[in-house]
Amino acid sequence: MEDNFTAVGEQMHQLITSLYPICRSITGDGVRQSFEIIKKFIPLAVYEVPSGKKVFDWNVPKEWNIRDAYIKNTRGEKIIDFKNSNLHVLNYSIPVHKKVQLAELKEHLHSIPEHPDWIPYRTSYYNEAWGFCISHNQLISLEEGEYEVFIDSSLEEGSLTYAECFIPGKLSDEVLIFTHTCHPSLCNDNLSGISLSVFLIRHLMQQKRRYSYRFVFAPTTIGSIVWLAENESNVFKIKHGLICTLVGDTNEFTYKRSRQHSAEIDQIAEYVLKRKSTENKIIDFFPFGYDERQFCSPGFDLPVGRISRATYGVYPEYHTSADNLEFVKASALQESLNIFEEIIEVIETNKRYINQSPKGEAQLGKRGLYSVIGANNEKMHFQLALLWVLNASDGSQSLLDIARKANMKFEDIKNAADRLFECGLLKEKDS
Amino acid sequence: MEDNFTAVGEQMHQLITSLYPICRSITGDGVRQSFEIIKKFIPLAVYEVPSGKKVFDWNVPKEWNIRDAYIKNTRGEKIIDFKNSNLHVLNYSIPVHKKVQLAELKEHLHSIPEHPDWIPYRTSYYNEAWGFCISHNQLISLEEGEYEVFIDSSLEEGSLTYAECFIPGKLSDEVLIFTHTCHPSLCNDNLSGISLSVFLIRHLMQQKRRYSYRFVFAPTTIGSIVWLAENESNVFKIKHGLICTLVGDTNEFTYKRSRQHSAEIDQIAEYVLKRKSTENKIIDFFPFGYDERQFCSPGFDLPVGRISRATYGVYPEYHTSADNLEFVKASALQESLNIFEEIIEVIETNKRYINQSPKGEAQLGKRGLYSVIGANNEKMHFQLALLWVLNASDGSQSLLDIARKANMKFEDIKNAADRLFECGLLKEKDS
Amino acid sequence: MEDNFTAVGEQMHQLITSLYPICRSITGDGVRQSFEIIKKFIPLAVYEVPSGKKVFDWNVPKEWNIRDAYIKNTRGEKIIDFKNSNLHVLNYSIPVHKKVQLAELKEHLHSIPEHPDWIPYRTSYYNEAWGFCISHNQLISLEEGEYEVFIDSSLEEGSLTYAECFIPGKLSDEVLIFTHTCHPSLCNDNLSGISLSVFLIRHLMQQKRRYSYRFVFAPTTIGSIVWLAENESNVFKIKHGLICTLVGDTNEFTYKRSRQHSAEIDQIAEYVLKRKSTENKIIDFFPFGYDERQFCSPGFDLPVGRISRATYGVYPEYHTSADNLEFVKASALQESLNIFEEIIEVIETNKRYINQSPKGEAQLGKRGLYSVIGANNEKMHFQLALLWVLNASDGSQSLLDIARKANMKFEDIKNAADRLFECGLLKEKDS
Repeated sequence: MEDNFTAVGEQMHQLITSLYPICRSITGDGVRQSFEIIKKFIPLAVYEVPSGKKVFDWNVPKEWNIRDAYIKNTRGEKIIDFKNSNLHVLNYSIPVHKKVQLAELKEHLHSIPEHPDWIPYRTSYYNEAWGFCISHNQLISLEEGEYEVFIDSSLEEGSLTYAECFIPGKLSDEVLIFTHTCHPSLCNDNLSGISLSVFLIRHLMQQKRRYSYRFVFAPTTIGSIVWLAENESNVFKIKHGLICTLVGDTNEFTYKRSRQHSAEIDQIAEYVLKRKSTENKIIDFFPFGYDERQFCSPGFDLPVGRISRATYGVYPEYHTSADNLEFVKASALQESLNIFEEIIEVIETNKRYINQSPKGEAQLGKRGLYSVIGANNEKMHFQLALLWVLNASDGSQSLLDIARKANMKFEDIKNAADRLFECGLLKEKDS
Repeated sequence: MEDNFTAVGEQMHQLITSLYPICRSITGDGVRQSFEIIKKFIPLAVYEVPSGKKVFDWNVPKEWNIRDAYIKNTRGEKIIDFKNSNLHVLNYSIPVHKKVQLAELKEHLHSIPEHPDWIPYRTSYYNEAWGFCISHNQLISLEEGEYEVFIDSSLEEGSLTYAECFIPGKLSDEVLIFTHTCHPSLCNDNLSGISLSVFLIRHLMQQKRRYSYRFVFAPTTIGSIVWLAENESNVFKIKHGLICTLVGDTNEFTYKRSRQHSAEIDQIAEYVLKRKSTENKIIDFFPFGYDERQFCSPGFDLPVGRISRATYGVYPEYHTSADNLEFVKASALQESLNIFEEIIEVIETNKRYINQSPKGEAQLGKRGLYSVIGANNEKMHFQLALLWVLNASDGSQSLLDIARKANMKFEDIKNAADRLFECGLLKEKDS
Repeated sequence: MEDNFTAVGEQMHQLITSLYPICRSITGDGVRQSFEIIKKFIPLAVYEVPSGKKVFDWNVPKEWNIRDAYIKNTRGEKIIDFKNSNLHVLNYSIPVHKKVQLAELKEHLHSIPEHPDWIPYRTSYYNEAWGFCISHNQLISLEEGEYEVFIDSSLEEGSLTYAECFIPGKLSDEVLIFTHTCHPSLCNDNLSGISLSVFLIRHLMQQKRRYSYRFVFAPTTIGSIVWLAENESNVFKIKHGLICTLVGDTNEFTYKRSRQHSAEIDQIAEYVLKRKSTENKIIDFFPFGYDERQFCSPGFDLPVGRISRATYGVYPEYHTSADNLEFVKASALQESLNIFEEIIEVIETNKRYINQSPKGEAQLGKRGLYSVIGANNEKMHFQLALLWVLNASDGSQSLLDIARKANMKFEDIKNAADRLFECGLLKEKDS
């Protein structure tokens, strides 16, 4: 098991490694290439939505592609080369090819003085511009003189690309897992979520499922808006949702509640994270961060929370070249995958039952379920779990509600419910 | 008063003393003999429910009776004699008469190694067996050899016996007090509750009553289930209920809330116990313990709580020969009776009123109820109580609600309400 | 600004100074003279309600007027003279002119042993009596002998006088500010509230107003009861109300909640007072104090709270000659006025909006409202305020609700809402 544990984490890291070099953006071939790689692991339906299409308050942007880019110094030496790091180019840069003096060049350069060795990641999606991102040490060493700047990109009518993996279950009710796919060579921010989703899909495809599962891979913000616009008539099926991102670092987990505040997914995620470690944090919804902002906009208000480890925007490596293959760890990825699996396990089994013998207690003895006082602790504990489930199962309380009220583990309550269900003492609510 | 105080406690203890020698069980003549003794104190209607009758998920068990039992050693000496203690026989033992070797005998002996001088109390209601209970010291001193075991019992079609004392009041709404009656020579566990109920009935019969009171004396578990099944069409009348047991020891009181959690009885019991002592404990409902489990099963969910002193199952004397006449104290019994009387006093008077002059304050001065600022503290306090009752009496708040909001004693609020009612400034809600 | 600050406070104090010498009561010419002075500052409609008129549980009392009063000693010297202080006469004293021995005189004298230099303020509205109030030092120095007592008062059919200043706004919904006017030479207790109301009216008349404002000047208790009886058909218009009294001393503020406990006015007053100082206190409603008792009687239950500084009944100067022109401070009056102005500012602007682009986030960038991460703190803060308003504006939450949830200042949330409203992204609820 320990071997398997490491093994899956290593595979997750290997998938990240193979996706790392690709220059992704909110549109373009980098996304399509990434999806081709992912398709080797899981079935994936890829969708193209044309530039200019109205999606609620937005329009699908032009498609951006890039082939090459560099800066040459006076001596004709490439001092910046896109081939070394796709972060070097301002994402969504318009094409440019000209000679500029250092002063003008500097207006188009981005660096991070606080981390002089790192290259920042910058974008300009909705404001046409060109630019380069370089380490601050390199920036300050640039000599006066003429530089040749070259960006071989295109910004044209095309489409925005997103993908779905749908895994049907017994119910048409859906669990949504959303991961963004628009960042170039950044590992924790987008690749960790992609990799976790892929391996979670592989896990789920081997399970018997009550719910149907829909995994969405799309660019952040515009991607979730596009997806909501394209799928508006079906969002009512979403009973639980999670945004999956920043899951490869070694920080404790943070669950950000949905706007509904105590939806079932909020209760389940809190339960699973808190029993894992009291260091894990549960925070209330706020209207910024990742794509939960779209799913939790007031016109949808879906029960969608977010699980992350590093905190959005505040860890130093955020949106820099330091968010690299070393920053994400196989063991952390595996641990994150386990958390998602555990949450899904509770989602699948957190049913509401109705006691079929609700007047007085059922006679457990004639069903072989009675333990006398003085029986061993394990038997007594099971007996108490049986009594809690029977007493609380009036259809209003889920098994997790009962576990919390009884101060018992969810699994113990679930096992008791399973035994009572087998005896015919419980019926599922709504079935 | 002090004399009277001790006097009633002593009488309660004397009743326990007279019931102590009888071998009670969930059925049988021991219960009937006990009811005959109780009938000398209060009117009692006795009911017999035949063996085999279906009661919800259960059936009324066969009736058990016992006349004699002993164990004789190789020398023909009685080393265990039912006549010395009815705890010696496993309650509901089937008849047996044979000779056995020590090894076989030991499979039928029960003792308590932690308390080597005490005889345990054990039962086998739903699993036909025979057995003896002995002190651990005696158990380990038994020599090898042949023993004669003799139990002159019968387990046959018969009936289960329970009794009721109904005291009618102005309303058909009922207060239920339930006490179990199925334990043999155990004092705190069953006899203390029986004795308290008897003396509470005597007290209530001398009072003017708003509510009707129904006292039920029945075996635990099967008895409350039988009673609920036999009286199902009338349980809607139960507005408040208390299980009365373990009330003769000297521990502080514990109130276990009903499943409804904040029914009026829960609020009243909490108020009375907490003002008596902050040491008294209020605990939430859980689905094990005594007969509250039946009344609070989801198919009934009645407002029935439990008042006890010692904690069910965890005090050392529980279900042993040490729960004897010394373990229960006259003063403790009297104190418990007082608590029940105080709770009933609040139940009787905790009305909701409607202010008949709700627009602006009523002019208290013209009714002789106005105290100027600077009046003595007692008058001012009464004045504030009048103002609280008038302001809060919109029909939604009981006098106890008002007392808690005003942070005043229930009696002060009640006295203010009485005065305002006399003036015509209040009307009772629903009357 | 600092000059202006002091200037308004000084004017408030001057108005108090000009009203101070007048002998007011719950009826009579003192009230009318006071209203004539106030009319120089603001428009005022004066109402007379005839003695004997039934008002709910009360009747309008006879009108009381007084011209002169004194006590002369044996030598014919005036030892007490109404002209020196109108507190010397028991308010509502019936006329008297006779000679009495010291012992009899003393039955009609009131003093404060704890504060031997102060004259108490005493009344006898509903119990016909005569009396004088004197310093305790003077009382104990009185020599045996015959005294001439003279009170030239009248208690006759007449009327009770109250006044209103109504300032119409865009809505017919009203904000009520109530101030009592029945105390003679007492500054904090009645004059501070009158002065604050007058200057608040002058402030409001210069503002654009959403709500209509109704200021009521009337005697305490009987005055608010009369006003409610006379205006019963219109009280439904009152959306928010404040009792204004004891606002000239230098204590921290206390807000006493309405009976509704968390009406919008309760939330707003708590927010404004708490952000001003954590020393300010918020207390729950209780049915004594000032005129909130009438507005919050169960037959009306209006959202009317009270703002005061000194605590009713417990500060030493309460109802004594020490509640004088020195006890109230210009700076404190000004500060109190500012608090009322700030509360009204929030009342006026605490709207509920509905996001007009509720599906996904609105595209702020195309409206010039988008700040990238890394923008300066002020811009980022504004951006977050925009996102909070958009996300929360489903019509159920007011701007104050949003400010509290976002942990931001009300003004920042309001400014964000203003900008979004200008863009057409918000519509007012119910408009």
